[in-house]
Amino acid sequence: MAEVIPHWLSKQAELAPNQTAIERPDGNTCTFLELKNKSQSFARKLSGLGVQNNTKVGILSANHIDMVVAIHALSYLGAVAVLLNIRLTEQELNDQLNDAGVSLVLGQLHDRNLNATFHKFSDVWELPERTGKLQSEIDLDAVFTIIYTSGTTGFPKGVVHTYGNHWWSAVGSMLNLGLRARDKWLAVLPIFHVGGLAILIRSVIYGMPVYLMEHYNRQLVHDAIMTRGVTIASVVTVMVNDLLTLLGDKRYPDTFRCMLLGGGPAPKSLLEQAKAKQVPVFQSYGMTETSSQIVTLSPDDALEKLGSSGKPLFPAQLQINAIGDEVGEIFVKGPMVTQGYFNREQATNKSIIDGWLATGDLGYTDQDGFLYVVDRRKDLIISGGENIYPTEIESVLASFDGIHEAGVVGKPDKKWGQVPVAFVVRRQASVSTEAILDFARERLAGYKIPKAIIFLDELPRNASNKLVRSKLAEHLNDNDSRKSLTYGRIRNKL
Amino acid sequence: MAEVIPHWLSKQAELAPNQTAIERPDGNTCTFLELKNKSQSFARKLSGLGVQNNTKVGILSANHIDMVVAIHALSYLGAVAVLLNIRLTEQELNDQLNDAGVSLVLGQLHDRNLNATFHKFSDVWELPERTGKLQSEIDLDAVFTIIYTSGTTGFPKGVVHTYGNHWWSAVGSMLNLGLRARDKWLAVLPIFHVGGLAILIRSVIYGMPVYLMEHYNRQLVHDAIMTRGVTIASVVTVMVNDLLTLLGDKRYPDTFRCMLLGGGPAPKSLLEQAKAKQVPVFQSYGMTETSSQIVTLSPDDALEKLGSSGKPLFPAQLQINAIGDEVGEIFVKGPMVTQGYFNREQATNKSIIDGWLATGDLGYTDQDGFLYVVDRRKDLIISGGENIYPTEIESVLASFDGIHEAGVVGKPDKKWGQVPVAFVVRRQASVSTEAILDFARERLAGYKIPKAIIFLDELPRNASNKLVRSKLAEHLNDNDSRKSLTYGRIRNKL
Repeated sequence: MAEVIPHWLSKQAELAPNQTAIERPDGNTCTFLELKNKSQSFARKLSGLGVQNNTKVGILSANHIDMVVAIHALSYLGAVAVLLNIRLTEQELNDQLNDAGVSLVLGQLHDRNLNATFHKFSDVWELPERTGKLQSEIDLDAVFTIIYTSGTTGFPKGVVHTYGNHWWSAVGSMLNLGLRARDKWLAVLPIFHVGGLAILIRSVIYGMPVYLMEHYNRQLVHDAIMTRGVTIASVVTVMVNDLLTLLGDKRYPDTFRCMLLGGGPAPKSLLEQAKAKQVPVFQSYGMTETSSQIVTLSPDDALEKLGSSGKPLFPAQLQINAIGDEVGEIFVKGPMVTQGYFNREQATNKSIIDGWLATGDLGYTDQDGFLYVVDRRKDLIISGGENIYPTEIESVLASFDGIHEAGVVGKPDKKWGQVPVAFVVRRQASVSTEAILDFARERLAGYKIPKAIIFLDELPRNASNKLVRSKLAEHLNDNDSRKSLTYGRIRNKL
Repeated sequence: MAEVIPHWLSKQAELAPNQTAIERPDGNTCTFLELKNKSQSFARKLSGLGVQNNTKVGILSANHIDMVVAIHALSYLGAVAVLLNIRLTEQELNDQLNDAGVSLVLGQLHDRNLNATFHKFSDVWELPERTGKLQSEIDLDAVFTIIYTSGTTGFPKGVVHTYGNHWWSAVGSMLNLGLRARDKWLAVLPIFHVGGLAILIRSVIYGMPVYLMEHYNRQLVHDAIMTRGVTIASVVTVMVNDLLTLLGDKRYPDTFRCMLLGGGPAPKSLLEQAKAKQVPVFQSYGMTETSSQIVTLSPDDALEKLGSSGKPLFPAQLQINAIGDEVGEIFVKGPMVTQGYFNREQATNKSIIDGWLATGDLGYTDQDGFLYVVDRRKDLIISGGENIYPTEIESVLASFDGIHEAGVVGKPDKKWGQVPVAFVVRRQASVSTEAILDFARERLAGYKIPKAIIFLDELPRNASNKLVRSKLAEHLNDNDSRKSLTYGRIRNKL
């Protein structure tokens, strides 16, 4: 049955009107009652722009209180927030806007030419409020957000999240981490990613303050944990590195209870450092399709189960498509898993079978049920917490006249975890690296631009003529980490 | 959409196999893994008795580890647990068994003649296990339990609870009270009532130990809080009284964080005593139909909002069927509210309209949204935590040959909160109090037997010839508390 609950922000404003909802490094705060009033006012202004039930509205913004307000405002109108990665190029953005049928984008100042009307948040505030009925309830089956992910095909697909997906994600996290009266969650990950967005949703459901940072600044994050009462922080590996360095010989306050780490397993040395400094790092595994973490490892198990991502959250299930404890494809199921991709029935049916999501990732579970991810989905590259799909870069490069074919792999990188590197077969020797990079920069977000272009005479292909990226990886100097990936993939094929 | 989650006990046994699930005053404990293994074994034995998907199985037992095991075992078979109040008479029990279509009852030794096969738990343990597939998932829309409540008609109706009702109740409570790693919940309330059952469900969902007591013993409850690490205790008013007396000048450990009080608002003097002793009493309002508490008042607000039941839990909504802040009927809505009464479409449609449950209780909310229950549903009498419906007693008394008509009201009682008192119009003056009580004792559970019989020449009736119980109440000596009830009812009629 479609469950209906009171609108979560209105409810929290009733239960805890004076509780802080948003706190910022500059000391400004906003209570749940204020956040509700702001969001309802913003909704009434948006209503004048024609936003109504089921309207898809783009959000193009770095973390900002107005972004939070805009997202809640859309929920009051029953509209759908299409969250856009601000690092995308004009073309990438317009592809997503077209695909989602977005004709209105809200956000901060930017220099792109969008195929949609753009309103700055500050302009919306100048509009008159329109009277009209706002949503007082939330139907958990209704669609709330769409976030694009390239997935395995190289073509970005919009992952549809219902309110229920977000609700269950928040509840699953609460059952794992507990909930305390003084919890305060640091949101420095971008809200346009599901990992950042999830913090906002937990905030209104738990009645918990969010410590909101617009951009990542290691010193500000450090200060937030040391002196501003943050008890939980969602981070990616590059941040853990920074933070441990800044921490030095000091200790975090006892009230700091969880560093929730997304974006791939952390290196052993990092976990050991964290343990020595008594920093409670919870590794996690998840993706846009699972509305953030779906498998989490507690610090108690972190060193004993080194390299594991942990166990599936309470409402979630995990299966490995293999015999016994062999490596196989990871399938997950649970009410936080998306019901599919926007307007992509075929892709949805291919990815989700009887409620089980085929992640495309390879892994195995040990005898205690801990998950080990052996190979990220279809050679996914994770760079500073951003997902990069080789196929997406390859198809852009291959569309360049002078290029015959291209293959992209991730290269281990101390700072970013991985960076993309391209192997290119040219049509003519005169095609320069610079020309290729110029071409790519127009079409791909900065973090997707290959950090090196390596020219080959031909790309390694298997009997079915499929590109074998693991062979490419062997061309890289530092190929230790790739060896295990190769191993994982081969094992799966047995 | 019907949400599916892993079987909650199996899941908890995976996540926290060695965590204590059940702890008893004698020091015996049982982990989640052991509880799962026991429950699955018990399920395989029950399977040999023909218990299968959707079989209704009666449970007739005081709190006991085997009772917990039996309830979980039924969930592994997809069967439905019909929880029976052990204090009911043979006739009351058989009425419920017949209504629910129960042909098998499990429990402890008893002396009733039941219209169903009875198996002691200890006998079931002797049976062989049958191989067969057990449920590995829980469909939240599936029916898990049926608990009878007399409601306003005097005829007991079976309240149907889905797994989802129980799930949402547990999550709503967690969002209100938080969840801490060392939580341990005292279960001394009978598990055959929803308030006791809810503790078991929270236990498996939270991964939290239950401190299980078979019967109420004030000293054992006191000890459990003082020395056994109990952090939360569900209680009724009579227990709070006892416990505060036993506490004397001492203090509970700081880790004791919640005394969750059901069964009507507590007297002011009791709340003041609790405050003086720093005992965190959370008053609550709920009923079988809401799968336990649905409105709760935190100790922070207890004295400022004296007499209030608090605010609806996060997933719940509240409406008063009245203009402004007038007194009116209390309606509640939320995913923990039952979808109806077993096999009683008409009663269901009368009580639940568009998801809103008409509680039959009267109340109002103040400007801050706090609920005040002015009059319990249709003159409900709550005695020592047990609900007593006057109509049920009245219809039994009226079936006695020598009685023309009868009216029953609750009389305030220091120990029990309220006790039932009957006003009777005799056919002949020769009909004795003893004869009436003898007749009643055969047909009504002990706590429903009137504590006094008062003979009248006629009963007060209104213009529509309906019994006006509030007028009866005026005949009682201590009628202060009834005055406000009278006021409430009259106000509602304006």
